[in-house]
Amino acid sequence: MALRYELIKKDKSSGARLGRIYTEHSVIDTPVFMPVGTQATVKAMAPDELKDIGFEIILSNTYHLYLRPGHDIVAKAGGLHGFMHWDRSILTDSGGYQVFSMSHLRDITEDGVAFRSYIDGSKHFIGPEKAIEIQNALGADIIMAFDECVPYPCDRDYALHAVERTTRWAKRCKQAHADERQSLFGIIQGSTYKDLRQKSMEEIVNIGFPGYAVGGLSVGEPKDVMYDILEYIMPNMPDDRPRYLMGVGSPDCLIEGVIRGVDMFDCVWPTRIARNGTVMTSQGKLVVRNAAYKDDMRPLDEQCGCYACRNFSRAYIRHLFNVGEILGARLATIHNLYFLAGLMSDIRKAIMEDRLLEFRDIFFGNYYKSQTLS
Amino acid sequence: MALRYELIKKDKSSGARLGRIYTEHSVIDTPVFMPVGTQATVKAMAPDELKDIGFEIILSNTYHLYLRPGHDIVAKAGGLHGFMHWDRSILTDSGGYQVFSMSHLRDITEDGVAFRSYIDGSKHFIGPEKAIEIQNALGADIIMAFDECVPYPCDRDYALHAVERTTRWAKRCKQAHADERQSLFGIIQGSTYKDLRQKSMEEIVNIGFPGYAVGGLSVGEPKDVMYDILEYIMPNMPDDRPRYLMGVGSPDCLIEGVIRGVDMFDCVWPTRIARNGTVMTSQGKLVVRNAAYKDDMRPLDEQCGCYACRNFSRAYIRHLFNVGEILGARLATIHNLYFLAGLMSDIRKAIMEDRLLEFRDIFFGNYYKSQTLS
Ligand SMILES: [Zn+2]
Ligand SMILES: [Zn+2]
Repeated sequence: MALRYELIKKDKSSGARLGRIYTEHSVIDTPVFMPVGTQATVKAMAPDELKDIGFEIILSNTYHLYLRPGHDIVAKAGGLHGFMHWDRSILTDSGGYQVFSMSHLRDITEDGVAFRSYIDGSKHFIGPEKAIEIQNALGADIIMAFDECVPYPCDRDYALHAVERTTRWAKRCKQAHADERQSLFGIIQGSTYKDLRQKSMEEIVNIGFPGYAVGGLSVGEPKDVMYDILEYIMPNMPDDRPRYLMGVGSPDCLIEGVIRGVDMFDCVWPTRIARNGTVMTSQGKLVVRNAAYKDDMRPLDEQCGCYACRNFSRAYIRHLFNVGEILGARLATIHNLYFLAGLMSDIRKAIMEDRLLEFRDIFFGNYYKSQTLS
Repeated sequence: MALRYELIKKDKSSGARLGRIYTEHSVIDTPVFMPVGTQATVKAMAPDELKDIGFEIILSNTYHLYLRPGHDIVAKAGGLHGFMHWDRSILTDSGGYQVFSMSHLRDITEDGVAFRSYIDGSKHFIGPEKAIEIQNALGADIIMAFDECVPYPCDRDYALHAVERTTRWAKRCKQAHADERQSLFGIIQGSTYKDLRQKSMEEIVNIGFPGYAVGGLSVGEPKDVMYDILEYIMPNMPDDRPRYLMGVGSPDCLIEGVIRGVDMFDCVWPTRIARNGTVMTSQGKLVVRNAAYKDDMRPLDEQCGCYACRNFSRAYIRHLFNVGEILGARLATIHNLYFLAGLMSDIRKAIMEDRLLEFRDIFFGNYYKSQTLS
């Protein structure tokens, strides 16, 4: 079935929205953070562990799965749900961001992007129709239009050019997309230019999609610039569709994004820093791999109820990182994802109680209290 | 409490024994395979996953834990059980094997072994008393005497010399060991010389320990030589104490070892090959990382009920290895440990029913049926 979005409540003191997305596979309370499973696995995690934390939707990457193992193999496994044994919702990106930012020797035309694989140098081509074809084979609940992503900074002419091409490509994506069980989201571009963001938003909304994403942010611009763009464009977006801010996942950006009206987020950052030995706690970031924790018998976060914090000490997890053991990455990842799931749950509760701005101040007061944690 | 060994039954057609070891932390059905957690973690596994498979005892390494994080830190965490969150039984080796085989610039005297750390070159010394002191701090249920391990091949003079020193060191270990909650096992050396094995066995048994290990096998000698030594020495060992063959964990050696009277085994091999993308199945070894499995939607082993086989295909696990994802190592490790736990369970059942030799023939008939699996 196509997704259904239910707007439950708006926060009285901000642009924040409490809502719910219904897909064929699960019901997703929004605002939501979606863990990223680039290669059809959220790194270091098993699907059951994601369920235990309570995630109802994860993201995976068209570009990577197209190259390895190939969308034909995923389709043969019954789509991504069957392939990776995940029976809740999945969102796949279109590959646009990756072909523009990761590919060597790429050649952009109106048709799409010809590029060489970063793995073996082989030649490939992805355009709007191909991006939809791949995503149809992957079978995610939510799929994304193929857009032209511009870097930051980006001059106005190129940003305008990309907005217009993104609109033309969005039409072709909608045209190419046939599978009614999958909901195709449009993506708004426009770099850091408010008028271009407005133009892109209007054009994409005019085409009509069951949800809208803001792309091309969190690509290196200052956070204030991102917040400014969100503050400008979000209130103009349709109220009855979910709004997805792509590539955002730090606690401050999540809270500030929600305040400006964002419903969905994804980012590799929380799981990536975990594998490098850094965790988020109620008292701020903690680099557990540091020798300072070698005999610290407290959990990562004394306020956390995750599997790692219930059972293991900083000293043990620090030891695991120090000797290069996989369980270290696992425990830190479990903790960071549990932390963000809890943060989003707290955010939703605060919206329900019309006290999100107060929640933000309290959260930041603790999170940024100290630069160094003992 | 010190351990108690209960001999339940002897196999009528072989030297195999069915038994049970009672420690303060668990009851262990023997013959048993013990997964190895070198660095206080069975690589890629969480303790709950080991419990789910049914393991009642794991092994950890004195040498590695002494170097990192240090036995003082483990002691501060309440010993290994608290440090690694494992509330069933633990066995620690003495570090003897590692200081002899892994250390640079080692200097062996009657006192013990001076060596340099393989991590940072720092100077260390472990002798019988130190090995016991470290193991007392680690707090495992079963600890091992500090022995002199000789390589294969080894000339008779050096093997004899090592047997005699191992006896003297075993006495010092028993003298140094005070903690009644831990059971100290003696180790029999003697390389591939039957008379030296007999001499070592008699001397170690004369000192008296609650269990006996055979060390210095599975160090490069042909399997027939190992089987021959076991066949010779095992019948002469005390009936009322568990017998532990160190460093053995392939299916053939497990079965042949049990047939000759071994009760306990440990080996890193099953978990190491798993992380390299090789699994054991009822039909033999399967190199799941091979491209041959890229679209094979069957489980690793159609006869297996492990978490990996119940939920994931060869194609998916092959993909995980192909792209270097941690979940691949996790699933293959879960499967290999489940496979060995099942094999040991089957072996115990066969002993109970006096059909171990028949079981061996059927198992090997399937396991070695084909060189290449499709
Ligand atoms: Zn936690
Ligand atoms: Zn299995």
